[in-house]
Amino acid sequence: MDLQFKLTKDFIEEIQELIASDNREAVVNSLNKLHEADIAEILDVVSMEEAKYIFRLLEDERASDVLVELEEDIRLKFLKALSAKEIAEQMDNMDSDDAADIMAEMPEEKQEAVIQQIEDPQQAIDIASLMQYEENTAGAIMGTELICVNENWTTDQCIEEMRIQAEDVQYIYTVYVVDNDKRLTGMLSLKSLLFAKRGTLVKDIYIENVRSVNSDESTEEVASMMQKYDFVALPVLNPDRILIGRITIDDVVDIIQEEAEKDYQMASGISENVESSDSVFALTRARLPWLIVGLVGGVLGAKVIGLFEVQLGQFPEMALFIPLIAAMAGNVGVQSSAIVVQGIASNNIDLSGIVGKLFKEFRVALLNGIVCAILIFLFIFLVDSDLKLGLTVGLSLLAVIIFAGIFGTLVPLLLHKRNIDPALATGPFITTSNDVIGLFLYLYIGYLFYF
Amino acid sequence: MDLQFKLTKDFIEEIQELIASDNREAVVNSLNKLHEADIAEILDVVSMEEAKYIFRLLEDERASDVLVELEEDIRLKFLKALSAKEIAEQMDNMDSDDAADIMAEMPEEKQEAVIQQIEDPQQAIDIASLMQYEENTAGAIMGTELICVNENWTTDQCIEEMRIQAEDVQYIYTVYVVDNDKRLTGMLSLKSLLFAKRGTLVKDIYIENVRSVNSDESTEEVASMMQKYDFVALPVLNPDRILIGRITIDDVVDIIQEEAEKDYQMASGISENVESSDSVFALTRARLPWLIVGLVGGVLGAKVIGLFEVQLGQFPEMALFIPLIAAMAGNVGVQSSAIVVQGIASNNIDLSGIVGKLFKEFRVALLNGIVCAILIFLFIFLVDSDLKLGLTVGLSLLAVIIFAGIFGTLVPLLLHKRNIDPALATGPFITTSNDVIGLFLYLYIGYLFYF
Repeated sequence: MDLQFKLTKDFIEEIQELIASDNREAVVNSLNKLHEADIAEILDVVSMEEAKYIFRLLEDERASDVLVELEEDIRLKFLKALSAKEIAEQMDNMDSDDAADIMAEMPEEKQEAVIQQIEDPQQAIDIASLMQYEENTAGAIMGTELICVNENWTTDQCIEEMRIQAEDVQYIYTVYVVDNDKRLTGMLSLKSLLFAKRGTLVKDIYIENVRSVNSDESTEEVASMMQKYDFVALPVLNPDRILIGRITIDDVVDIIQEEAEKDYQMASGISENVESSDSVFALTRARLPWLIVGLVGGVLGAKVIGLFEVQLGQFPEMALFIPLIAAMAGNVGVQSSAIVVQGIASNNIDLSGIVGKLFKEFRVALLNGIVCAILIFLFIFLVDSDLKLGLTVGLSLLAVIIFAGIFGTLVPLLLHKRNIDPALATGPFITTSNDVIGLFLYLYIGYLFYF
Repeated sequence: MDLQFKLTKDFIEEIQELIASDNREAVVNSLNKLHEADIAEILDVVSMEEAKYIFRLLEDERASDVLVELEEDIRLKFLKALSAKEIAEQMDNMDSDDAADIMAEMPEEKQEAVIQQIEDPQQAIDIASLMQYEENTAGAIMGTELICVNENWTTDQCIEEMRIQAEDVQYIYTVYVVDNDKRLTGMLSLKSLLFAKRGTLVKDIYIENVRSVNSDESTEEVASMMQKYDFVALPVLNPDRILIGRITIDDVVDIIQEEAEKDYQMASGISENVESSDSVFALTRARLPWLIVGLVGGVLGAKVIGLFEVQLGQFPEMALFIPLIAAMAGNVGVQSSAIVVQGIASNNIDLSGIVGKLFKEFRVALLNGIVCAILIFLFIFLVDSDLKLGLTVGLSLLAVIIFAGIFGTLVPLLLHKRNIDPALATGPFITTSNDVIGLFLYLYIGYLFYF
């Protein structure tokens, strides 16, 4: 099988026709070759009735995998349509972390009903305890399925025990080693286990000093650590250093991407995590707050221009370049804040301190500002033959670029120092502030020149 | 060992003092506990002389891992200081994909000299052949280290063969199964291998139908596939379907993040992949192009205002809201284009076609526009008691928001259709175009109202 399945309109129409003619066999055949993630994509776009028809045709294991892969809003509709018993059956087949995530999406009464119907008591306990962890912590994203051996066992005992434990575990990744008190002491590579002589003791071949996290560690820290050290799995400990779960790379990949996308969305003035397939209302709600910030900025800008109304009446050519100054102030602010925010997000090491960073930004802005100022001066001087206006616009542009660059650097750094997400300062906030202050600088410099 | 190591100014100063007093033992001791990625971070910030001092103290395996983790510009300086023979020794210890990447950073003459000095002939051949693949293809990021067994072997034969192959492989992840012609037929889970009875044939327990990619597949497709299907490793085939390498999740995590960061940087008007630690010159060069685009937009904006100079002279209060209109046009364009670009990047399924997407954006923009228009109308009417100005600004704002939203949606969709990176259309380009067109709409509507 090559590459990913790409959902097409034709494929959907074909499936819908098969469903309409109740041709179960043909539907099963077209789904057979597909990965659960692909089937979830189909369920995301067909009607609820059609989705249920497809879902009922899936084998148990596959049905629960599809449920995990569904978009949250579609899954919610599905869960509403299923009885507590039916949901509990799916939960029995899922990894505990996925089950706990889905459980958290349901109303509380339904949660209790479902938990009571889960057949495997250990699975019920695991899910219930995972639901206790706060959002965005290691505990909330870890799974309890893991392979764990005692340091005093022989490798033969290990393989025997692992055979039992492995039933619940989809991928082994790593075998963790614990002492008699269940405290994590290290890990055992499958390589060394596979190639060890019979009777070898675990304690003689395991790797000590394995990195781990506490269950209350932030997911951001977990993601950055796994990425930096190229881990595929990371053990999670409780405060007594007892091994309680593991986080796998596939969960972290999604967090890394969400983190990067969130910063991008904030920089674009989108306040909630939305996708183009979300409802018109959700999309509007995510965008309106920052538009209102922009509106307030625009009103303040009007006030600033109002301050210089008399002078603008005498020299109306000054008004021509108001949008240029405002736009450049915004652009520079967005650029400089994006670089700071990405640097903070990727833990880019820079020990120079705030003053050092501001001085560096000053030099970048100075260079950019000089080039832009000369260009606009030459344009106004040569095309409009207006020396005074050229000098005013050029000099103010230089001042505005330097100010906007430093402001765009300083604000996210200060927010980060106060433990506020610096990405808040990118996009509309920086653009709007820089617009208003840039306008003031321009009109004030013009005032000095002309009066 | 918990969490990641955080580099501090104090730690660096301590190391630098130890180096200054030539206290090798103490330096080795402080480095002993650190991961190679952490040591690379230290080398990135100390002076070149100090970095070389530290590098020489590292054991062979560790030295080559540190070299892989270094920032590219620091590594280049390092490679210049090392002889071809010294580099070849490091290359012998590296994974073939890392070695090929680093090789590609060196000038051609040095490449040849290094290849000839690599001791293991297979490693030299692997590196040389990996260097043939085009950038951003599966071939260029795959490693040749993998474990591969014949479908006709018994599990005992497998373990014997794997013992030999595993010497070069850091993590096993998956055991690939091939036929007698080395064509990929499936994979063998370590779980089933570990628990199989003696004498079992591979063909009786392996998993058929494993997804794979061709070596010329794009890294973007590889990353999206591994993320969607939660793969930790993906086999790479040549056109004859012969297994030639594998791509591991750790390489893909970096690609996913870079992809997301690149879109964010483009949206912020940064044209090259830069970090805050880059030189002032590199940062300026990455930012200047989009500033000049903004400058051209500003000049066009001046021309638009110039068209209405007479009217603005008669009704100067219109000028007050020029920055508001321009800013809102820019903000809406950035929002709508960001949603389209992220949707395209994350393969968000939406089969509605371009017209459907535009109609959806129209509804979102209409809602946002009505709210903003009413707010600004009320403000101008109630505070400035100017009904005519309030109506003009409110109505133009509505028109501008709708236009900007549709334009911001349409442009990236069209670029994507023509196989141009849609992220190009976010940020300064959209902002600037919307600024200019928004201004025109505003002044033209004002003209209709006032004359």
